[in-house]
Amino acid sequence: MVIHVALNQNGYDICFSHGILFRAGEILDLNRKVFIVTDTGVPPVYADTLLKQCAQGHVYTIPQGERSKSIFQFEALLSKMLELGFTRKDCVVAVGGGVVGDLAGFTAASYMRGVDFYNVPTTVLSQVDSSIGGKTAVNLNGIKNIVGAFYQPKAVLIDPDVLKTLPVRHISNGLAEALKMSLTSDGALFDLFEHGDVYENMDTVITRSIEIKKSVVEQDEKEQGLRKILNFGHTIGHAIESEEDLHGLYHGECVALGMLPMCGTQLRPRVKKALEKLSLPTEIEMDEAVIMQAMKHDKKSESSGIAVTTVNTPGAYVSSIMQPEELMDRLQCIIKR
Amino acid sequence: MVIHVALNQNGYDICFSHGILFRAGEILDLNRKVFIVTDTGVPPVYADTLLKQCAQGHVYTIPQGERSKSIFQFEALLSKMLELGFTRKDCVVAVGGGVVGDLAGFTAASYMRGVDFYNVPTTVLSQVDSSIGGKTAVNLNGIKNIVGAFYQPKAVLIDPDVLKTLPVRHISNGLAEALKMSLTSDGALFDLFEHGDVYENMDTVITRSIEIKKSVVEQDEKEQGLRKILNFGHTIGHAIESEEDLHGLYHGECVALGMLPMCGTQLRPRVKKALEKLSLPTEIEMDEAVIMQAMKHDKKSESSGIAVTTVNTPGAYVSSIMQPEELMDRLQCIIKR
Repeated sequence: MVIHVALNQNGYDICFSHGILFRAGEILDLNRKVFIVTDTGVPPVYADTLLKQCAQGHVYTIPQGERSKSIFQFEALLSKMLELGFTRKDCVVAVGGGVVGDLAGFTAASYMRGVDFYNVPTTVLSQVDSSIGGKTAVNLNGIKNIVGAFYQPKAVLIDPDVLKTLPVRHISNGLAEALKMSLTSDGALFDLFEHGDVYENMDTVITRSIEIKKSVVEQDEKEQGLRKILNFGHTIGHAIESEEDLHGLYHGECVALGMLPMCGTQLRPRVKKALEKLSLPTEIEMDEAVIMQAMKHDKKSESSGIAVTTVNTPGAYVSSIMQPEELMDRLQCIIKR
Repeated sequence: MVIHVALNQNGYDICFSHGILFRAGEILDLNRKVFIVTDTGVPPVYADTLLKQCAQGHVYTIPQGERSKSIFQFEALLSKMLELGFTRKDCVVAVGGGVVGDLAGFTAASYMRGVDFYNVPTTVLSQVDSSIGGKTAVNLNGIKNIVGAFYQPKAVLIDPDVLKTLPVRHISNGLAEALKMSLTSDGALFDLFEHGDVYENMDTVITRSIEIKKSVVEQDEKEQGLRKILNFGHTIGHAIESEEDLHGLYHGECVALGMLPMCGTQLRPRVKKALEKLSLPTEIEMDEAVIMQAMKHDKKSESSGIAVTTVNTPGAYVSSIMQPEELMDRLQCIIKR
């Protein structure tokens, strides 16, 4: 199944298929120097499978985890490409989750002012969300995604077979983003989360999520407006995540926590139940003042308040500027006393 | 005088006028947080003049010189903006030469994936060339401009009055780029360099150069083809420059040296004379093998040879792939024995 992302410039295909990793060379132009970026948490067999299909491939493995999304790693990757003599006509491929994709994408965007970038996401999170839309970034001084570029991949290859080696906690982590998209944009998909067997319907969940994300990105490539709905749950989620050292929570888990306060009071218990079904957290031991403080650095914060997306009915969203007092009040529902 | 750069997306105005620096606030949106980047070689009065016109301005001064085009400085600028609470709606202004513009531009391109960028070039080099076209970059491991972005400014303000404080060597340095553009694209402008009084006709030289550069950039924003002519003299020039620690040559001086081997043998003595008139170097004590080696890292190098632009008649250029042997041979004309 091929889903085309139609942009004004630089449109591209998302190719979804079981076993597609073994046919990557038929779809991507790997007949050149290929810089394959992966991390220590990804089974090496995936990068190796790709490597075998390259004319001149090189695998670069970064340490697993958010800390690798740094300017330090960015510089290390660029230096390695330079050392290996990469030219403008060569390419970068990310094989991994969001950290690998964001770092490798920003590296591809910046090396010689931009070389071709392919993304081969290997987690649910990156398959349903982060690999689509061209957002690349690294973190700085503890603030997430503050340095980066809008840079579209030339193609995204999604092989659901690679999820078989993914720990169940990682699967739930990614499903949090899919659940998020169902809440803002697809009531029927939320129905599946609420009443269906999610794990038996992974292909549907992934492809429906891609369709939602693609549609939003097509309408608003550079997050001038509509794309903000993808940040549903992220304002609070990122704030919690920036304190993650204390809690060891994954991104999707933070987003799960961040969504609940942004749901209407009627909807909130239903979402809570759907999250629990996926073993996602719905409460956290954290001071609300700490969360509020961390939110100040958010790209979405404005002097007049904080731009937020809220949901009262699955499939429909409301955008507004929320005052800190209301946010503080809503936060109470996830604070463990 | 306003010269509009018409691009598919993100077109912008280049505003050329004596004393325009004092009216910047009427043209640019400075009614927000403004991060003004300048360097120790620029008279502080220019940044201060701009600062007075900002709602919330902050001046950041980097050390003068090519060494400031580093990932280290890039990170320092980003950290400062973060510390000062810059949001996506704020902006960056470069007040200085090419180093300031390239570094500040890449910082603006990357901070929160892009904030507004204005360029106020204060050298001849940056006024006629580097401030136009959206190329931003820093250097890495001694290789120039290897990390960066194509990122267009929102506007460029050119005040020729600021050139009055510029040392004469800096003026000649910039005129080398103007001379370069006359050779590839404007025989009449080369005639002025060959037979006229350049210093008495600075406004003409600057605005004609801007027109040439604008026209090239409009036709080829991302250097897929035509824009390569702007690299006339730069393949060798950059190679010499990457060894600059040894010689202390300025960019334009390196380009002057780089142009001569790329001129036809008939034209070469005429160009040499025009360069001498501007006190630009026409010979260098450097081993040609060192220059050849440094060229290997050039973005323009390809496996089949080196992509070059040559000129036989002022105003007309030839693009071709040159073999290392021919390049080596042509290099002889600038090597001081």
